[in-house]
Formats: sequence, C-alpha cells, structure tokens
Amino acid sequence: MSLVIVGSLAFDTIQTPWERRERIVGGSCTYCSLAASFFTSPKIVGVVGEDFPEETIQFFKSRNIDTEGLEVRPGKTFFWEGHYGYDPNQRETIKTEMNVFRDFRPKLPASYRKAKIVFLANIDPDLQDKIVTQMENPAVVAMDTINFWIATKPEAIWRVLEKVNILFANEEEIKMLSREINIIKAARKVLAKGPHLVVTKKGEHGALVFSRDFVFGVLGHPCEDVVDPTGAGDSFAGGFLGYLDKTGKLSRPELRKAAVFGSVMASFAIENFGIERFKTLRPEEIEKRFREFRRLVSF
Amino acid sequence: MSLVIVGSLAFDTIQTPWERRERIVGGSCTYCSLAASFFTSPKIVGVVGEDFPEETIQFFKSRNIDTEGLEVRPGKTFFWEGHYGYDPNQRETIKTEMNVFRDFRPKLPASYRKAKIVFLANIDPDLQDKIVTQMENPAVVAMDTINFWIATKPEAIWRVLEKVNILFANEEEIKMLSREINIIKAARKVLAKGPHLVVTKKGEHGALVFSRDFVFGVLGHPCEDVVDPTGAGDSFAGGFLGYLDKTGKLSRPELRKAAVFGSVMASFAIENFGIERFKTLRPEEIEKRFREFRRLVSF
Repeated sequence: MSLVIVGSLAFDTIQTPWERRERIVGGSCTYCSLAASFFTSPKIVGVVGEDFPEETIQFFKSRNIDTEGLEVRPGKTFFWEGHYGYDPNQRETIKTEMNVFRDFRPKLPASYRKAKIVFLANIDPDLQDKIVTQMENPAVVAMDTINFWIATKPEAIWRVLEKVNILFANEEEIKMLSREINIIKAARKVLAKGPHLVVTKKGEHGALVFSRDFVFGVLGHPCEDVVDPTGAGDSFAGGFLGYLDKTGKLSRPELRKAAVFGSVMASFAIENFGIERFKTLRPEEIEKRFREFRRLVSF
Repeated sequence: MSLVIVGSLAFDTIQTPWERRERIVGGSCTYCSLAASFFTSPKIVGVVGEDFPEETIQFFKSRNIDTEGLEVRPGKTFFWEGHYGYDPNQRETIKTEMNVFRDFRPKLPASYRKAKIVFLANIDPDLQDKIVTQMENPAVVAMDTINFWIATKPEAIWRVLEKVNILFANEEEIKMLSREINIIKAARKVLAKGPHLVVTKKGEHGALVFSRDFVFGVLGHPCEDVVDPTGAGDSFAGGFLGYLDKTGKLSRPELRKAAVFGSVMASFAIENFGIERFKTLRPEEIEKRFREFRRLVSF
C-alpha cells in the first residue's frame, strides 16, 4: 500500500519540570512520518519556512520519507511553545505563531493521490475535507483533531467524519466532540457517523480502540523517565498506520497489532526531546518492545 | 489456605451526578469480603454499631463469610458521605463520623490466627501493625492505605510495610508515600522496604502490578454505566486475594490472574450502588468477564 501524512512541521519550545529546549523540530507530520518510517515509506504534505533546517529534511530522506509534498515558503516555520507539569498528560500552550502555516492549503502531488492510506493530522477540518477529495480511492482515511477545532468548528469535523474510517483523538476530545461523558457512549456516537474505528488515546494509560463489534485495549509502556511527552499521539498514529500500510491487511488481528505498534512508537518518542529518539532507534528495539507489551498484559 | 480481612463496615451516603443514596451499607471490609467470597470463605474483623442491619450480617453468612471477628458495640456505625463528579476517579469526602469505629482495636479470634492470608484495609497503620503481630505464620500480609494516613503517619506506614508482602494503593497514594512523581520509581522504593508486590490502582484505567522482576498491567473493564465507584478498590483487593486463597499458589502466573480477577470484581462493584451488585452476581458472570478481559488485551 502507501501512506500519505498531512500535518504540521514546526519549531517547538518545550519546558518540562526538569529542562527547557528552545526551537527544536516538531510538528504532527514530523512525528507521525518518522514513526511510520520504521514500517513503510510515507509521503508527507506540509509547509515550512526558509528557516526550517535542511538537516531535518535530509534526515527525512534518509528514512525514506517522500518529501515531494513538502513546500518551502518565504517566511518562518510554524512555532509552538508548551509547558508540561509533573503530570505528563497535562500541558499548557504558552504561545503559537502560525507563520507560513497560516496559509497552508495542502495540495497532493499527483504521485500521492493513489495512496491507499491517508492521515489527516489535527489541522482545520475544512482543510482535512479538501484533502480527502483529492485522494483517488483510499482504503483508509484516518484523522486526528484537537480541542480548538472541536470548540470552533464541530460541524465541519462531523462532516469530515462521514468520509473517515479511523478517528484518532484523546479521550477528552472524543467526549467533548460527542458531548458524552462516558467514553463508550462517545465512541459509539462517532462510529454511528461513519468511522469503523475510534482510537481513544489516554496518554500514559494507553489507548482504547472501539469498533462496531470489538473493543481492544492497549497499555502505555511503563516509562521511568518521560523526557518530553510532545508528539506521543502523532507517533502513535504513525506506528499504527505505518504498520497497517506495511501489512496491507485490515483484519481485526492486524488492527490490534497496529494499535500495539502505535503505543510502542509513542513510548519511544517520549524518551528524548523532540525527534531525537527516532535518530537512534533501531528496528530490533521496536520488535523487543512489542514483545515486552505482550508480556506486560499476558495472563 | 484461608483469608482474614480487617477493615471498616459503614453506612455511606453517596451522591453521583445522577442519583443520591442515603445510608447504604459500605466499608472496606464489606466490599473486600463480599468480592473475596466468590472465591473463598473469608473471615472478617471489624466493628459495627447496634444500628447495623441484621439483614447484611445474614447476607455475609449466606456468602460463607465468617463473622466471628465482627463486633457489635453500643452506639452508631461508622458513617461516610462522599460526592462524585462526572469523572468517577475523583471524589470528595463531605462528612465522616467515626462513631464506634473510633475505638476499634481489632482482636483476632483464635480461629483466625493461623490464616495464611491477611488483608489490612486502609485503617490506622499502628492498628495494622498490631494485627500482623497477632497472626501466627501468614504466607501473605497485604495492606491498603489512604492519603490521610500517608499525610499524618508516614513513618508508621513504612514500619508496617517491612512486614508486608503486598501493598495495594492508588497510584497517587504510592507516589505521595514514596515522594516520587514517577510510578516506577515510587514502586521500586516500596519494593526496597520489604513488599514483594506493589499493586498500583488507577481507577478506570486499571492497575499496574510491580514486583522486583516483572511488571503486569491489567486494564479496567470498559464500563458504560458507572453507577457508584465506591468500593472498587476494596473489591479489587477482595478479588485478588480471594483468588490467591482459592488457588493456594503464589507463582507469577497466579499473581497475574489474581490481578485480573481483582479488576473483574471491581468492574462488577461499580455497576450498582453499594453492595447491590454482589447480591445478584453469579459465578458464571465472573468467568465470562474474565474471558472478556483476555479478549480485550489479546493481540
């Protein structure tokens, strides 16, 4: 198959209770595509300013990420500053500078349009809608969203969801979107709109995957040193969809394994700041952690 | 083997966002022993006032709970009022009346002292200590504790822990006790003091079980209608220890299964107010849910 990932590429300034990093490379497309690159050769769509490091683009290429859809524009790259407290599930946005991302109108290169899987990271739902219509015959349309869009454009999200197969979102966001306080009821409301799968991410507690006829739970990998929680959710989606793209099957057992690989990739992302961990990660470490996940829950 | 459970028997007034119940039977010993009674014949130690319903004592007996250690004293039974918000993991104590529980000095009947497993629910750690010394040769000493004792008598808790094999507590409480913000580090500090197992309960997210050489994660059962979260933690301990008592083995596979039965019994407790669910629960429902837990995490 083949996997297209549309989302943000960014500079992030991150402060944890222990350390601060200024303007390191981040963004939903960045994390998702790097995580997916351990399973397949994703094609990315995004926009950066002239200040975006050539070194990172070279790193993408070295990981077989297709950057044809990556636009470099005059101006500055999207910037985000966030602070984490002791609870890595809680974060505060300090500053957002849209910069070149403000006028992001994603256009898929011709070579991307036949891809079988597309991931729409947490961008404006109207843009997500426009991307779907550019795809020729995708087997899987997956999307993520965030509080901001749920608060400002809920109808647009519901409209896109009619064309979507898999929704990834945080538990709180799925509850907010569906106006349900119970996650099972919330997931059912989303499933009724079209998606076959709702992946509710719960940070360090893992994720629950709801379909119309099964529920699957995956734990978070117990982590002694959460260095930087940024990008965990997008790395989850990257591992999940990258594995699906690699296996080429959408059977229940493969969907379950995909969720575990999602949690595996998220567990690596948080072990270092930004995308650093993906620079050293080896395939055998991924396989080893996958086996650890099995031992963790086996009885 | 045989299982002794020491803790509170109470009247609880419970308010959820949907419903209020006045003065229904509750208490850590009550929940724990009822949950355990589906696996073994637990022996309880506690105190109630003359107002405690004879009907409940008869219910205990009908479930083969040994009530020789249940003292009925002149005065009123311990009373607790708690309110829950939409998040069942959060609760607020509105009122506590100690009543006859104030002078609770648990004394084990002679027939209890040879029991192989003893559970010390969240009472004063100095009392917990005195109970341990009354036991002749227990194979497993398990305890729970709460914020109040961690804040007021931390040294006493650490002292008891030296004689304890299994600590059950909420994740936040274990972090508070060990002054660690990471749960792995927190569990390791407790394990270094003596216990072989630290069971960190995470409410609807399940539990992580730490030993010196393995970690086991069990999910919470996805529940569409959490009617009353009260007693979930004590029911977890009851299912866990009841199963261990039944199987008579302390091997790793049995400890893992025990944790799953803990989560199973907690998942039933919250399906109705107070102990109501335990009045209708059938053994085949427990077996069925155990199998559901396996399906939930299998990949």
